[in-house]
Amino acid sequence: MYYIGIDLGGTNIAVGLVNDKGEILEAMSTPTLSPRSYTEIVADMVRLSREVVKKAGLQMSDVKSIGVGSPGSIDDDKGMVVYANNLRLDHAPIREEIRKYIDLPVHLENDANAAAFGEYVVNANGAKNVIFVTLGTGVGGGIIIDGKIYKGFNGAGGELGHFILIKDGLQCTCGLKGCWEQYASVTALISQTKAAMEKNPDSLMVKIAEEKGVVNGRTAFEAAKMGDEAAKEVVRRYTEYVSAGVVSIINIFQPEKLIIGGGISREGDYLLNPIREFSKKYSYKCDGGKTEIQAATLFNDAGIIGAALAAR
Amino acid sequence: MYYIGIDLGGTNIAVGLVNDKGEILEAMSTPTLSPRSYTEIVADMVRLSREVVKKAGLQMSDVKSIGVGSPGSIDDDKGMVVYANNLRLDHAPIREEIRKYIDLPVHLENDANAAAFGEYVVNANGAKNVIFVTLGTGVGGGIIIDGKIYKGFNGAGGELGHFILIKDGLQCTCGLKGCWEQYASVTALISQTKAAMEKNPDSLMVKIAEEKGVVNGRTAFEAAKMGDEAAKEVVRRYTEYVSAGVVSIINIFQPEKLIIGGGISREGDYLLNPIREFSKKYSYKCDGGKTEIQAATLFNDAGIIGAALAAR
Repeated sequence: MYYIGIDLGGTNIAVGLVNDKGEILEAMSTPTLSPRSYTEIVADMVRLSREVVKKAGLQMSDVKSIGVGSPGSIDDDKGMVVYANNLRLDHAPIREEIRKYIDLPVHLENDANAAAFGEYVVNANGAKNVIFVTLGTGVGGGIIIDGKIYKGFNGAGGELGHFILIKDGLQCTCGLKGCWEQYASVTALISQTKAAMEKNPDSLMVKIAEEKGVVNGRTAFEAAKMGDEAAKEVVRRYTEYVSAGVVSIINIFQPEKLIIGGGISREGDYLLNPIREFSKKYSYKCDGGKTEIQAATLFNDAGIIGAALAAR
Repeated sequence: MYYIGIDLGGTNIAVGLVNDKGEILEAMSTPTLSPRSYTEIVADMVRLSREVVKKAGLQMSDVKSIGVGSPGSIDDDKGMVVYANNLRLDHAPIREEIRKYIDLPVHLENDANAAAFGEYVVNANGAKNVIFVTLGTGVGGGIIIDGKIYKGFNGAGGELGHFILIKDGLQCTCGLKGCWEQYASVTALISQTKAAMEKNPDSLMVKIAEEKGVVNGRTAFEAAKMGDEAAKEVVRRYTEYVSAGVVSIINIFQPEKLIIGGGISREGDYLLNPIREFSKKYSYKCDGGKTEIQAATLFNDAGIIGAALAAR
């Protein structure tokens, strides 16, 4: 059986045809061109859905359901994106609109939850309780308990970027001060990198940033790997911030696996090994085994796969 | 049907006969006299179990199962208290030992989880996802998801006192620095009270402590209610520490209810209202309703009721 997964992002609308194993058979994307009305966005979703099915040599009747992952707060019961700030969507009846064109069940999911579920399906290896953390512009999360996405009673659970790591610390966009997101996001890493560059004008970070014309999440990692001391210190501190939050999450959930995603996770063991060491040393003592920390593998595909299969 | 619940504590072994509604029909207790061997402890458990059944005018055949709540790390599959530091129990085969005397299913549970489940059974009012936080010597927790105790894959989940609230803050007994427990436990409140008393020798707190011969978790609350400014400031800060952790937990779980237990919860709305206000103001925005924060009602009975009914 086949499933259509739609990843509605701030930049692109990505649509894929996914099989039961979580493999993408065909995928296409088009710019979101936000802000647009939900009817225009859905028209693109429908067009691409039909195209991926056609490209795979299938009929819409071979598809079991459509899953849509969207940022913001989602009400799947009502089939609605209740509110998505970056897309300017407000109580958008996505399900109803898609079903005007395609007669299939339509399931809506928060994009972070969809990505978490995608990583879970492909990488869990039989684990039942898996936490997915994505370090990006913000810090997002997805909680899989007993093989299902956990959302809390109001659909808003799993905001793993918004527990307090440093009380009265940096102001967070959510209103709190000192949220984990303010220290462990790539946005935070870039701030930390820039601050270190100002203090250390001779650092390799400055040279790399000049060459590339930009300071990004890779700047400090790149310079650190080349032996730059100031960059190593940036990476050490950033990794410590990430680790502190990871251990907090482990002590709460004790999941079999904690999967770290977002572009920064491409740093692989260079990022993960210090986190693994910290969590091995500091997570709550027990006889029953330790959480395995691993990097996400699906990146942009996770949203499509998760949206497609969460409805299954 | 009836259930025996046993609350194995550092001070007392409490045994109760519980019905399906979570009501205790008969209860008895005896000093734990720790450290003792597990065989001696179990002998007392068995003796009291027989006595409560007899006092209720019933037979052991009217009882469906025995549940034991114990501190420390528990392996219910093996029927063992793996390690309980304060009781000096190390891989104690409690189930096997009880079953030498009584031929009933025996279920073991961590004491904080048992207490959480007891509060859940009696106070959830149909809620499916409930978090129980106990503010005592330490900060303990219990996570109820979909009506079941959540323990993680290794049985050690739900250590809600051990997420980091203030990175690089006060040293915690678990090895981490800045755990919530170091700021929100009654032990922490007593330290905070003592520090304020030293700074404010004219405070009512000093007078109250002298009269009672002790500084305890009530000292600051009592003086604050009488208008003492220094005490009000202690309560305000303590409540803020509690609130910061509560909001973190809400943002992660978005449970229908968050129940606060431990002796301090007897302060009721005086403690809870500022926490409710903070969490209303700062918990992550969503359309789907807010977590209800309430005080535990069962106190010492929660452990018996929860241990009895978790096995059900």
